[in-house]
Parts: sequence; C-alpha cells; structure tokens
Amino acid sequence: MFSLADIDVPIVQAPMAGGASTPALAAAVAEAGGLGFLAAGYKSADAARADIQELRSLSDRPFGVNLFAPPGRAPDGALVDVYAGRLRAAGAEPVGEPRHDDDGWSEKLDLVRELRVAVVSFVFGCPSREEIDALHAAGCAVWVTVTTGAEAAVARDAGADALVAQGVEAGGHRGTWDDAAPGDLGLIALLQAATCDDPVVATGGIATPEAVAAVRAAGAAAAQIGTALMLAPEAGTAAAHRAAIKDGREPTALTRAFTGRTARGIVNDFMRAHDAYAPSAYPDIHYVTQPLRKAARERGDASTLHLWAGQAYPLAREEPAAETVRRLSAGAASPAARSR
Amino acid sequence: MFSLADIDVPIVQAPMAGGASTPALAAAVAEAGGLGFLAAGYKSADAARADIQELRSLSDRPFGVNLFAPPGRAPDGALVDVYAGRLRAAGAEPVGEPRHDDDGWSEKLDLVRELRVAVVSFVFGCPSREEIDALHAAGCAVWVTVTTGAEAAVARDAGADALVAQGVEAGGHRGTWDDAAPGDLGLIALLQAATCDDPVVATGGIATPEAVAAVRAAGAAAAQIGTALMLAPEAGTAAAHRAAIKDGREPTALTRAFTGRTARGIVNDFMRAHDAYAPSAYPDIHYVTQPLRKAARERGDASTLHLWAGQAYPLAREEPAAETVRRLSAGAASPAARSR
Repeated sequence: MFSLADIDVPIVQAPMAGGASTPALAAAVAEAGGLGFLAAGYKSADAARADIQELRSLSDRPFGVNLFAPPGRAPDGALVDVYAGRLRAAGAEPVGEPRHDDDGWSEKLDLVRELRVAVVSFVFGCPSREEIDALHAAGCAVWVTVTTGAEAAVARDAGADALVAQGVEAGGHRGTWDDAAPGDLGLIALLQAATCDDPVVATGGIATPEAVAAVRAAGAAAAQIGTALMLAPEAGTAAAHRAAIKDGREPTALTRAFTGRTARGIVNDFMRAHDAYAPSAYPDIHYVTQPLRKAARERGDASTLHLWAGQAYPLAREEPAAETVRRLSAGAASPAARSR
Repeated sequence: MFSLADIDVPIVQAPMAGGASTPALAAAVAEAGGLGFLAAGYKSADAARADIQELRSLSDRPFGVNLFAPPGRAPDGALVDVYAGRLRAAGAEPVGEPRHDDDGWSEKLDLVRELRVAVVSFVFGCPSREEIDALHAAGCAVWVTVTTGAEAAVARDAGADALVAQGVEAGGHRGTWDDAAPGDLGLIALLQAATCDDPVVATGGIATPEAVAAVRAAGAAAAQIGTALMLAPEAGTAAAHRAAIKDGREPTALTRAFTGRTARGIVNDFMRAHDAYAPSAYPDIHYVTQPLRKAARERGDASTLHLWAGQAYPLAREEPAAETVRRLSAGAASPAARSR
C-alpha cells in the first residue's frame, strides 16, 4: 500500500475539483517526484474513470484521487429558494435548479477500488470504518481531510492512513465536516492540535520553499500545494481565473455565496453582493449558481466566477508544474523520514 | 541599540495589555534568556513608569514596552450609543460612557525615550518617521506589528528595526492598522507575504517547540508567545480567564463585541449575544464595556469577561514562565543567526 516514503519530494498536489486539476497536471507533479492527484468531485464516475485512465497513460507513478464525502441531510428548501430568488432579482443569469445529491458516492467508491488507486483522499467528511476497510482490501491508502483536532481524532480512529490537515488559509472549499461550524484554525495551530502517529500532509497557503520547510518543522510529512500550481500550463484553470491570480491585488475571503459551502476565493463583485445572504446548503446552492458561473467562465467574466485561491495566491508563478515542485521542495529531505 | 542577537533563545514574550502582562512575567522571560515585554496600553504613563522601574529592579536584562498607536478619527457616536443601549437592554451592567482618546500617546512616547527602553513595539499602526527617528536617538529599537504585506512595506519604509508579524491565529486584539478591514492572513501566509531584510518576529498560535521551529523555518528570527504564558504564576491573568483557558473546550473567534476592535477570544455568552451588533469603534466601545467587564472579573464570571486567547490556547500549561521559555526553545538556535 502506498506510503509517503514512496515519493521523492515532500510535495502533494492538491485535488482541485471544477477544472483546475487535469491528468496532465497530476502526471507532471508525479513525474517530478511528488504525488499527483485527480479530483473526482463534480464528475460522473465515467468521467473520473477516463481521467484515471488518461493519467495512467501519461505516468506510471502512483497518484491519488479525491472524493467528496456525502453531504448531510438536505437543507430547508425555502432558504435555498430565497437565495435563488435574490440572485434572479439581482439580474444574475442563468440561475439553475437546486439539487441535493451525493456526487455519486457509491459509484466512485466502487471505481477507485476497482482501479486500485494508490491513494484515495476524502474531503467534507470521513468514510465509515467499513468503507475504509474495503478500500484497504483493494490496496488503496486512505487519507482524510481534517480542519480541527476533533476531526483528526475521529479520522484516526476510523482507520485513516494519513491526515490532510487543511488550515483556514487554503483556497477552495473548507474540508470541514460540518459546514454550519466551519472553524477558522490557521495551519500551524491545526498542526499543533492534530498531532498523532499517523503521517500528516499540511495544506493551506503554502507557496514557497520556506513554507514547505515550516510545515515539515511543525511535524508534517509533506505539503499539499494547490493554488501555487494553478498558473501551470498543465492546469485547467479558466482564463479569467488565471488573470485574477496573476493580478494578485485583491484579498481572499471565505464565502458560501457560490456553492452554499464555505470556500476561500479572491474577493469579487459576486462575493461582495451575495455573501451575507448565502445559506449553508451544499450542494444545493452549487447547482443554483452553476449555470451562471459557467456562463461567466465562457465570457471571461471574473466578477461573477468563483475565483478559488488560497491566501498565498499572489506568490503563484506561471511555470511548468514540474518546476514548481522542484522549486518548493529545494533542499527538503524526502518524506520517508517522517512517514511510517 | 538592541538587536535580536542579544537574546539567548528565540522567544519574545507578547505584551498583553489589560492585566496579564506584569513586571514579574517579563522578568521571568528575560532571565530565562528571552525578551520580556511590558504592555503600556490602557495604563497611565505614571503606571507604565512604575512597571518599568519594577521590572528593572527584578532583572537587568533588556526588555520591550508596547504602545498602542493612536486610533483614527472618532466613529459615529450614534452607532456607539445604539450598541450601549443594546447592552443596557440586555441587562448588562454597569455600562460605561464612551470616550475616544489616544491612550496617552505623546506622554508614553516621552516616557520610553526618557527611560531609554531597549525595544519599543507598536500595535494598531505605525509611528511616523520623525517619531521613529526620535526613538532611535534615545537608543530605542522600534518594532512595528503588521498583519499584511502592505503594512510590512510601510513599516519598513518608516524605519522600523523589526516587524512583528501577527497571524490571524493570535489571541487578543488584531494589530491591524485599519480595523474596518482587519484581514485574515494566517501566520505562514503572512510570513511569506512580509518577506524583507528586517528581522521578523512571528506571533499567533505558537504553543509548542515544533511551532517555534516552524516559524523559524519560515524565516522568522524569533517567536512571540502570548497565550502560552497566560497560565504562568507570574502572569496577571484573571482567575475566571485562567479557568476558561484550562478548560480548553470552546473554540476561539474574532469579535468586536468587547472593545469595538477585532480581537480573538474564547467564545462565551457575551460574544455570542453581541458580536453581530458591535460597530468598529475603538476605544469608544472599550470604555462602554470596561465597567461591566471589571465587575465580571471581580465576581469570576467568565460568561461576560473578554477571554482573550489564541487558537492554540488549549496547549497552554500551568508552569513557571521560565519553564515555558525553556520548553518552547528546546533545540532552537539563538536568534543571532537570523537577525542582522
């Protein structure tokens, strides 16, 4: 079964659902000695299968696939309708229909077991012990994303092989299990709270070799890098999103405005207009805003797009992913010393 | 003039205005090889002078004194009155009279120059170049607290000798210069944004030797420790505040409810009840709530007290301050290597 000692440099690519993660990006990171990742979230099991097959045609290195844990019970539909009505009244269009689904949970669990993916990571929750046992039986290492010491303890007890400790600095969705209480632990505070015998992968606002060294000094086996790879030519980052990252002037903020789940992005007009009104209702609000965000992406409108980015995003560089992996891991020992 | 190379271990005591900082605490940290600090905020210049003299009677090591930079212009008084009325309606008492003052700015600048304090640090803003030059002429090193890369650049240009980089994890007031836009940079993201030739002291949620090593790996010359010292017998922490820290179960949050300025404390009833209604109005709201917080402290009522604490507060230990300094700096090289 995969162990962090199996990669050459302590860099894990963050799975970035919604387009930025591509097989080409994962292959570039893997070939540079790190751990590449695919994001199965929002995709059908068939599309995720195609990604895995494409990645295997590009690289024979181990890689990870990230799944969204199922959301809790459906929110009050009236709250979702009020928010959708507000968007329509503001002239946002097209507004989509809300839907509460589990992102193909069981199909995707079947898929990663069938294809014996080296690492299966989870966000938004922790699989059951039975689900983890089944993954182990298929040879998959199981990583669980945590944002508090309590989540870390539960994941460890459920049988996770490693924890992905996500600080509040991170771009995109908070991995928090309960979005109603998303928490706000900074990465170093979290690493101190989540100490355990399992290997820890640290993520959130890491964009320099110094930051990689910092999380390793704090006890992490490796650093997971997301935003710092979004300007790579191999990434599928939308053009307007790339331009906003390169601009680098606006701060980031946490918001539920785009998806009904707390996520960090570069502040833009849509966030300013709707943030205060967005309910915790995921993925229902995701489906409400999906068509208007798709339209915004197509017309290159950064004022309406979800501009996911971590706090260190102004430090992202336009360079091949392999160069980013090499640059951020320069001088770092391999993860072997810290993984079991 | 003082340089970070003059202390034996890379530990700076955080100045904690409002009671926790005492001459005995500063002396204990200084004698253990770190840099002790006094908090002049909220005190008269005469009381600050007495603290400095008492500390000098306890230790002949260098130490720092922290001053509050003057607030901006007064807030709309009507907003302050509405908040005070809300507190009265909720039965909070006694409610004080709002006041907008500069905490004795010029008297305290005169004092630290006259007494040739080794390090004078500032929070809530940056002194002018002229004020910094005058401090330098008196032999005082000038440190400025920053929370963004932009603040770091201004402080450096004004002539600061070192920057105190305060992450959002920190307990007590955010050092942000403009409370209307308090920002939310985690410590490692800030250290990456505030890179400069000046020495940097990192603060916010540091409570273990691993975290000290992490901020040093991220480029800081030293770690500034606040909450981790609040259970020391030498600290002046109120009994109810100590009990809340030792309990360790509640999360922390940022709020303006107690002072009209964004600050982090352990979540309690007062914060939950009033947070959403508190205007940015410092120190006006501080004076409104001061009598009721004083009464709460006297009757040991943690539900009404401002329970300032950083995100790593559950890791604070009840032990002499010298032991905390030794424990957190174990294995760390002296700051000399990183200071100029």
